[in-house]
Amino acid sequence: ITSKLPQTGTTIFTVMSALAAETKAINLSQGFPDFDCAPQLTKLVAKAMKDGHNQYAPMAGLMSLREQISIKTEKLYGAVYNPDTEVTVTAGGTQAIYTALSAVIHPNDEVIIFEPAYDSYAPAIKLMGGVVKSLELEPPDYRIPWDMVKRLITNKTRMIILNSPQNPTGTILSMADIDELTAIVKSQDILILSDEVYEHLVYDGQEHHSMARYPELRKRSFITVSFGKLFHATGWKVGYCLAPANLMQEFRKVHQFLVFSVNTPMQAGIADYLKDENVYAGLPDFFQQKRDHFREGLSQSRFKLLSCQGSYFQCVSYQGLTDEKDTDLAIRITNEFGVASIPVSAFYSKGTDHHILRFCFAKRQETLDKAVERLLKV
Amino acid sequence: ITSKLPQTGTTIFTVMSALAAETKAINLSQGFPDFDCAPQLTKLVAKAMKDGHNQYAPMAGLMSLREQISIKTEKLYGAVYNPDTEVTVTAGGTQAIYTALSAVIHPNDEVIIFEPAYDSYAPAIKLMGGVVKSLELEPPDYRIPWDMVKRLITNKTRMIILNSPQNPTGTILSMADIDELTAIVKSQDILILSDEVYEHLVYDGQEHHSMARYPELRKRSFITVSFGKLFHATGWKVGYCLAPANLMQEFRKVHQFLVFSVNTPMQAGIADYLKDENVYAGLPDFFQQKRDHFREGLSQSRFKLLSCQGSYFQCVSYQGLTDEKDTDLAIRITNEFGVASIPVSAFYSKGTDHHILRFCFAKRQETLDKAVERLLKV
Ligand SMILES: CSCCC(=O)C(=O)O
Ligand SMILES: CSCCC(=O)C(=O)O
Repeated sequence: ITSKLPQTGTTIFTVMSALAAETKAINLSQGFPDFDCAPQLTKLVAKAMKDGHNQYAPMAGLMSLREQISIKTEKLYGAVYNPDTEVTVTAGGTQAIYTALSAVIHPNDEVIIFEPAYDSYAPAIKLMGGVVKSLELEPPDYRIPWDMVKRLITNKTRMIILNSPQNPTGTILSMADIDELTAIVKSQDILILSDEVYEHLVYDGQEHHSMARYPELRKRSFITVSFGKLFHATGWKVGYCLAPANLMQEFRKVHQFLVFSVNTPMQAGIADYLKDENVYAGLPDFFQQKRDHFREGLSQSRFKLLSCQGSYFQCVSYQGLTDEKDTDLAIRITNEFGVASIPVSAFYSKGTDHHILRFCFAKRQETLDKAVERLLKV
Repeated sequence: ITSKLPQTGTTIFTVMSALAAETKAINLSQGFPDFDCAPQLTKLVAKAMKDGHNQYAPMAGLMSLREQISIKTEKLYGAVYNPDTEVTVTAGGTQAIYTALSAVIHPNDEVIIFEPAYDSYAPAIKLMGGVVKSLELEPPDYRIPWDMVKRLITNKTRMIILNSPQNPTGTILSMADIDELTAIVKSQDILILSDEVYEHLVYDGQEHHSMARYPELRKRSFITVSFGKLFHATGWKVGYCLAPANLMQEFRKVHQFLVFSVNTPMQAGIADYLKDENVYAGLPDFFQQKRDHFREGLSQSRFKLLSCQGSYFQCVSYQGLTDEKDTDLAIRITNEFGVASIPVSAFYSKGTDHHILRFCFAKRQETLDKAVERLLKV
């Protein structure tokens, strides 16, 4: 058989998490917490199962959950999404991204992505027959050079993928970015896929510029969000997509054949849990404290800390310390010092290596302390 | 935007279940039970959540579950699948089907399907740029005319999709079918997607001819299975795919970008539950009794019963009674008599109408009795 993804191996997340398990290293690689979700949340899911919510949910999701999503979105961003036609529950953020791309990318359509980027975007675009137009951002600031974006645009440009807060760099879009983006997509009628799975994790009092806030962007955007990241339950694989009705119609055409529907008791439990608005109010502070603690510890190390405005990832540079490839170094630090990270080259389709590693700080303080202690020895 | 599925509306399952809910009709349309899954099973999932199994599962699934799947498959079919390289847990049977097609169907590849068929096959093939070669089977027996299959084959034929026990017709593959199939795929090196979600629902002492049993078929087959159907928990959306390592490698390349992983606590609970081999032993008898009871009731009606060798669907013909389209009749019976069914024309890409309706008999005896009482008035 001829592979449709001949260049693709196993994702770096699988590789590093497996290595961490094998070597019993502290796993700061894949993006998930080492603390548990709220007992109240698991109780609500258990109750939903006990109450018999175990058969197919409606294809677009339980209406109770879609309503809560709509209320949450309006509260956060002042944007009203109709639960009937503009909200669809998905099996996690990744399925939402894949489905949105499947729904609108035709063969030869060009999609602009900014790298380093979550490694599912490029292969998904290729599987649709689309063409990946990757723009590599430069450390340490990873700002989007909008003039270069403009030069990348052709009459085949169908979509731009954005991700703010950004994985792996921890950057967030600024109001100036929003203005530049608006001017570009408006003049060329380009769609947006906005991966906002880290929407609540924005620090230092800054604001998350969701596409939902801006009518000119919103009307052309698929916005993908993850309850796993929001509720410290990454293994539940429940997320959602927001989009205007005309885009959502195409999304659902694919969704219904791709998964048909999403886990019912999890949906019911999350819908109940969301009735308490406070469930996500404390998140920025909670994670900012972890970020600050981890950064403070690492400031004593030989690594150079990059800035982190959002997400739960801290990138560090070892430029000038060694010429090792970042993949080799990540593996070596796991094996020799017992801390697993992600080499940022894995987020570039071309494997560009700026000698930067990504650490996930969504961990208990004692885990971060132990990791720092080990990393100071590197 | 240009739709990639311009012909596609909302699936008939969504339409009929929504109509049933709205009109408070007895819902014998979509394939799910109106009784609950085992309390022991939900308890095990609740325990998994409580024990903190709430973060990402490995991409291919929890090893404990893959091992149980491997044991189950060997016990049922004498086939050993390596849990490491030949078993992948999916977000339900539908995701397994979609992912297998995504992994191997290239643009212009031809895929042979037998209609009436589950309505996800054809759109999924089209989304991959593939060409659907549909062979329409004839009621009342719906046997596969293998000589016509041979004539459909070209050097672009990449795959044949099989589904036994079959949805919606309730037919099962015979040993003669297996022999014919083997001769064809062997001579032309054709892949197989075998949708076996109803594997346990085979009646009258007959056997399920899983592709896993036959080395010549197995080595070219993706076999897709559903725990939702097996455990009366269709809303949980956990299933799996079996395939030889070279095919599974391609499957996982797509799977990791499509959903990344599947609900962890559900996987953990199901893995525990499967340790008791008896959990599926009684299924054929359990459902055969329902089939017999439903058929006996309907034998007094004006409908003509087609045969049902497997699955949990009973088809009936109203040929000669009225000229109404099956879709119109299904809607009218829902509205006027309070019983929802699925018009079988929805399972043909061309909408072929043989005046046949499908009823799901995976319901409590009292539900079936009430439905029969109403259907006798039609
Ligand atoms: C599904 S794992 C990928 C997303 C993530 O958590 C990460 O970047 O580590
Ligand atoms: C996911 S609904 C489709 C499968 C099924 O249950 C049916 O045919 O009714």
